[in-house]
Amino acid sequence: MNFICGNAIVGQSGGPTSAINATLYGVICACYENKEKIKTLYGMKNGLEGLLREDLINLFCFCEDKDNLEALKATPASALGSCRFRVPDLSDDAFYQGVLSILGKYDIRYFFYIGGNDSMDTIDKIAEYARTHSYDIKFIGVPKTIDNDLVLTDHCPGYGSCAKFVATVSKEIVRDCAVYTVPAVTIIEVMGRDTGWIGMATALASQGDSGVDLIYLPETPFCPERFVKSVREALEKHPNVVVVACEGIKYENGEYVSKLTYTDAFGHSYLSGAGRELLALIQVHIGCKSRVVELSTPQRCASHIASKADIDESVKIGKYAVEMALDGKSGEMVIVKRRGESFELSSAPLSKIANKIKYVPSHFISSDKAHITPEGIEYLKPLIKGEHYPTYKDGLPVHFIID
Amino acid sequence: MNFICGNAIVGQSGGPTSAINATLYGVICACYENKEKIKTLYGMKNGLEGLLREDLINLFCFCEDKDNLEALKATPASALGSCRFRVPDLSDDAFYQGVLSILGKYDIRYFFYIGGNDSMDTIDKIAEYARTHSYDIKFIGVPKTIDNDLVLTDHCPGYGSCAKFVATVSKEIVRDCAVYTVPAVTIIEVMGRDTGWIGMATALASQGDSGVDLIYLPETPFCPERFVKSVREALEKHPNVVVVACEGIKYENGEYVSKLTYTDAFGHSYLSGAGRELLALIQVHIGCKSRVVELSTPQRCASHIASKADIDESVKIGKYAVEMALDGKSGEMVIVKRRGESFELSSAPLSKIANKIKYVPSHFISSDKAHITPEGIEYLKPLIKGEHYPTYKDGLPVHFIID
Repeated sequence: MNFICGNAIVGQSGGPTSAINATLYGVICACYENKEKIKTLYGMKNGLEGLLREDLINLFCFCEDKDNLEALKATPASALGSCRFRVPDLSDDAFYQGVLSILGKYDIRYFFYIGGNDSMDTIDKIAEYARTHSYDIKFIGVPKTIDNDLVLTDHCPGYGSCAKFVATVSKEIVRDCAVYTVPAVTIIEVMGRDTGWIGMATALASQGDSGVDLIYLPETPFCPERFVKSVREALEKHPNVVVVACEGIKYENGEYVSKLTYTDAFGHSYLSGAGRELLALIQVHIGCKSRVVELSTPQRCASHIASKADIDESVKIGKYAVEMALDGKSGEMVIVKRRGESFELSSAPLSKIANKIKYVPSHFISSDKAHITPEGIEYLKPLIKGEHYPTYKDGLPVHFIID
Repeated sequence: MNFICGNAIVGQSGGPTSAINATLYGVICACYENKEKIKTLYGMKNGLEGLLREDLINLFCFCEDKDNLEALKATPASALGSCRFRVPDLSDDAFYQGVLSILGKYDIRYFFYIGGNDSMDTIDKIAEYARTHSYDIKFIGVPKTIDNDLVLTDHCPGYGSCAKFVATVSKEIVRDCAVYTVPAVTIIEVMGRDTGWIGMATALASQGDSGVDLIYLPETPFCPERFVKSVREALEKHPNVVVVACEGIKYENGEYVSKLTYTDAFGHSYLSGAGRELLALIQVHIGCKSRVVELSTPQRCASHIASKADIDESVKIGKYAVEMALDGKSGEMVIVKRRGESFELSSAPLSKIANKIKYVPSHFISSDKAHITPEGIEYLKPLIKGEHYPTYKDGLPVHFIID
């Protein structure tokens, strides 16, 4: 047995998702099941910021109240709080020695950090410093991001629930659009600054002949002329056209489409979205009824319509992270491998994941750059399977809240 | 028995809701159960527009496929299509004779129109013309509107599901906001051009000490100075402040707050929302991190989180409308009366309902004009009770679609 008896610590970092707390639940359960090896599991409030100010809570104290802990699985956003903390270069001994001295003070032997790209860089650096300075602490990166842009893993926990939300709401908006006979264009703006994974999921919104008509991802340059032509062609087929645009779509020259500014009553100018720019194109070149629907923040926190596949997998990933640490692994992240219809968990070095971006591959995007291929649809399908319903009280979901 | 043997017709009109098809389901079921009196139930495509162009479908042909018909209950927006059709003054004989001649051609004896304020005016006028010209057709108004602004009824079908959606999503956004420690203001903009019923529902988003901090309704004048002061006070209590604004809030002088315009890349100006105006106030007078989340179209079509109380009641209302007609009533609308914790159905003359607006009463609004009173909360509670889940296939809700 190569485990070390001591304490563990877990933190959440980066943007919230609907599944990040399911992973936290998995970490808590697996640590509690291994109480003979892990005496206490601490939670950092607001990630690394909380660690640095020693704002820690004992998470085992939540393990006796099963109903409350169960609510954690369906609670959106980071229950422990989050941070956007950029760790310094490895040459900054004072910083890393400070971190390691706090970990020593609390007898931390296992360190779990749930986050996206930046968070993997954070833990990679701390793990690297600890290794080269011979600290025996196991550092495990636990993925989460609605952006689905971490490399080496088939997909990221949190993405499936986001995909299910945008696909469901887009399908409902398609119904809403279909009720009038007047020609109209609805533009749905979704998240995705660098990659089109979220926009791609709206391709699932079809039933029979109806669905989203055109989808624009940041991976392919946006051509205004081609866009107007495509919308015109779609309007010839049916009066209600639905277009999806990721917030990060760019022109051929690499500039963001969302350069548009609006001016408020005080004369201040603000950056507005890609959706409004497309709306302007419709209004100028086609002139029909048109509107923008921004799916906004609920994309990352609408846990009332979480994917069961995503939540179940997120719990498993949290548990797997604990197993990895107890097996003596460090400096690695949990990854998901696709095996036909199912998935298996594995691990990969953080150094190969941090600061890299996985784009939607070209074989998922149609040749006209405005549709998703059948291969892309097959990729998405298992990720949104099943519904994980929260517990409702008086008609509203019950959330797990740490005061 | 005072029923007339003949055909019936049903139409949907005005803006879609998550429950309008549940009412249609109720009308279809009740007519089918009374097949000995109602030979055929026709559906008008796109409301009165479809009637005028005789674009009708036999709705009994859907009654044998129970699963498909069941899907109708959880399908958002008007399955029959909708219209925004203003009927002319009663002196326009040609119009009304035209309508009645089409009804005669199809042997229509029962006429059901599911809609909001404008639709009740439509059916009131046609009923009045038919009555004074001795046509024996029973005209029943069947209410629906997320705006909840019809008079004489305790509440409107469709409102409960909208209230459940905005309360749930606001609660999730409150969680999302709570993850960072940096002072920040989030403004949630909800629908409600004239009345604050939808905004009021966000008061349900609280759990323990956390919830929406300030709620602004069109019923009370919006004072920018008081708003900035209230936000400052809220920021002193916790770093993440959540404000709700209805799109139709107005200044003391009666002008809409949403007068704000933005200018696109082509130099065109557009009307923007109340939320962005409040955002500008925060940015100018407080200067902290801030953002707007517009809940947009899903407020009226997010049937994946429909209120069971609302859907069940909407079905009952559809059935009750058919009973009313078979009982010989005409020129009336179904209304809901509150009896303690439960509700009962009744009817009222359309002439007393059409073209009137029910505002949020002052005893539901706190003296500081930014909160909802306990009485208001009690009013809301039974309307969002229970969850009506759609049937899911491959991870997405199945909708009822008429090709």
